[in-house]
Amino acid sequence: MFDPGSFAPKHFAFAFADKVATVTLNRPERKNPLTFESYAELRDMFRDLVYAPDVKAVVITGAGGNFCSGGDVHEIIGPLTGMDMTGLLAFTRMTGDLVKAMRNCPQPIVAAVDGVCAGAGAILAMASDIRFATPAAKTAFLFTRVGLAGADMGACAILPRIIGHGRAADLLFSGRSFSAEEGERWGFFNRVVDAGALQGEATAYAAMLANGPTFAHGMTKNQLDMEWAMPIETAIEAEAQAQAICMQTRDFERAYHAFVAKQRPTFAGD
Amino acid sequence: MFDPGSFAPKHFAFAFADKVATVTLNRPERKNPLTFESYAELRDMFRDLVYAPDVKAVVITGAGGNFCSGGDVHEIIGPLTGMDMTGLLAFTRMTGDLVKAMRNCPQPIVAAVDGVCAGAGAILAMASDIRFATPAAKTAFLFTRVGLAGADMGACAILPRIIGHGRAADLLFSGRSFSAEEGERWGFFNRVVDAGALQGEATAYAAMLANGPTFAHGMTKNQLDMEWAMPIETAIEAEAQAQAICMQTRDFERAYHAFVAKQRPTFAGD
Amino acid sequence: MFDPGSFAPKHFAFAFADKVATVTLNRPERKNPLTFESYAELRDMFRDLVYAPDVKAVVITGAGGNFCSGGDVHEIIGPLTGMDMTGLLAFTRMTGDLVKAMRNCPQPIVAAVDGVCAGAGAILAMASDIRFATPAAKTAFLFTRVGLAGADMGACAILPRIIGHGRAADLLFSGRSFSAEEGERWGFFNRVVDAGALQGEATAYAAMLANGPTFAHGMTKNQLDMEWAMPIETAIEAEAQAQAICMQTRDFERAYHAFVAKQRPTFAGD
Repeated sequence: MFDPGSFAPKHFAFAFADKVATVTLNRPERKNPLTFESYAELRDMFRDLVYAPDVKAVVITGAGGNFCSGGDVHEIIGPLTGMDMTGLLAFTRMTGDLVKAMRNCPQPIVAAVDGVCAGAGAILAMASDIRFATPAAKTAFLFTRVGLAGADMGACAILPRIIGHGRAADLLFSGRSFSAEEGERWGFFNRVVDAGALQGEATAYAAMLANGPTFAHGMTKNQLDMEWAMPIETAIEAEAQAQAICMQTRDFERAYHAFVAKQRPTFAGD
Repeated sequence: MFDPGSFAPKHFAFAFADKVATVTLNRPERKNPLTFESYAELRDMFRDLVYAPDVKAVVITGAGGNFCSGGDVHEIIGPLTGMDMTGLLAFTRMTGDLVKAMRNCPQPIVAAVDGVCAGAGAILAMASDIRFATPAAKTAFLFTRVGLAGADMGACAILPRIIGHGRAADLLFSGRSFSAEEGERWGFFNRVVDAGALQGEATAYAAMLANGPTFAHGMTKNQLDMEWAMPIETAIEAEAQAQAICMQTRDFERAYHAFVAKQRPTFAGD
Repeated sequence: MFDPGSFAPKHFAFAFADKVATVTLNRPERKNPLTFESYAELRDMFRDLVYAPDVKAVVITGAGGNFCSGGDVHEIIGPLTGMDMTGLLAFTRMTGDLVKAMRNCPQPIVAAVDGVCAGAGAILAMASDIRFATPAAKTAFLFTRVGLAGADMGACAILPRIIGHGRAADLLFSGRSFSAEEGERWGFFNRVVDAGALQGEATAYAAMLANGPTFAHGMTKNQLDMEWAMPIETAIEAEAQAQAICMQTRDFERAYHAFVAKQRPTFAGD
């Protein structure tokens, strides 16, 4: 079982405190690019979080004033240009598996974005549940700049759901960057905060969730994705089942008894 | 057949005039909470509206400066904590059936929201077709506050379609309230109007629709939902059929003849 | 094979330069309405663009300060009122086929909208990939004004994905027009520019795309639509395949070598 207290990844920094895991991409001298190894290690970690009941929420961020510059040109793009289809598909499936793992773990993920947030870095933000940015955040889905499609790691499916189809088309066709202000206005960023406050606010939000009814949060996350392509009637039945399950948790009882006693509920996630 | 002229519900107020039905949640001393009985009676009424050709549009609102505070803690949440799965699922399916009934009736529903709009109250607004708010409207999908998932009555499917997936995630995970101004900016509220003008503007909008081509409006409402999870090509064929049907209405002819005569058309809904 | 250099349509103007095709609706004295003939000719042209490798992007616009006033009342609506279902369905399928053809051609389409953009004109803008408007643009999905449903040529499916379900419902039920400013705020328009700059900016955007990795752009366009109604996991696998295909293009190699040489890549679309 995944032990957040002893987890020591090789390709990014990891901290765990008060039920919140913090993942920090930390090659600041290169603006925290991803490599084959860091992709794989992130994927494995998010997969393991399914079996990490002590971890209730995740913050993902970057070191040194930038979030993530995406796939490293020398370490990833160079080798890819020499691969055959078997190798290419193994790579694109691995990167897609990272997004799947981020969406499949029950913990809500809060992305704390400062500075450069580009390519696969923008995807990491997009694949999170909540996104905070500083005014200096500069986000770009720039796959087109390296000759590729905007269809990378789910962007053509997920980005339009967040900011609308027209804005997503502009970003994916042009590869242009957008500001924190634009991102907030479009619904990509949930909050814009000063650089000095970014980690604090992201961690506070994660802690707020971690101290909430986390079983129910996992269900919320699951349903938000699972109902994605369901007809409305099917979705409503799916929620009738999902919520009935949550009504059998002790957290639901705890909330009721706290309310009757005019107290704030203390949730335990079960 | 449902007779709007004689309909006298026990658990909310109902008025009918000029083709527009107005539903008013009216336990103002408790901010208009829902109970088992009012859920069921609302569900039955919206189901009956399918067979109420005289009713062409609906306004739903609350008495006393608030819209609806959601499921009553004492009358609903208390009993639920003591139920087994059979009872819980019967309840969540009943509440889901209310949303299904609101979506399935052909009449457009205009929600007029002032003050508190919380929990199942926020769902009633979300499940309407058009939403007007006053500056004092305070809307919250606060299921998480009582230990439950945001997956309630279709919220994980419907809310992201209205305001985008990122904003919906924030609201459903945190349970936080949002202002009328935020709601308008995000596309939740179609219009923000002064409290004194709320009923008038909502009723005027409903009347405008009620005096329009109501057969076609029913088709618009149906298609907006039915095409929800269709591939684009399928949706375009579905609309070719839907619109061809509408082209056989007399309202289409009326509009053409009025245009040729340089007059405003008088629609009759057939 | 479609030859853009010699294509001379009868019912709209066409120009081709620097890989960009420009379609101009040009009956300015009537604000560029559509007729049975122009619908069919546009549909055929967009279908032919699938086999026009020299055309890398399309601009669609209107002559004389207006985009398009929609289906001509005298030439289209009049005859439709006299048709039986066979004829009506043939018409609605033909108009739907125009939208399908716009979505199915690999070239990104940039709509340049000034003045009136109404009915089927609004649909043409909606069915484009990128939309620029002038401050004078006045857009309305006004089918309801002629007694019809908002369900026309895919509007109930596509418009909610662009601007959200609540705003789409308002526009389709009421038929009201919206300003360029509203359209930009809602994500319908990507950019608002002065009338004098409209053609230049739209053409520059199209040229930027035309000089980019156009094979990959075609994949982006395809995936944006194809993943529309896919579950997330399916979409991510679809993108793994789509992007692996793009990684076999020479444009991907060109971009890498240009990067290493600290130059701007020159893409060739293969």
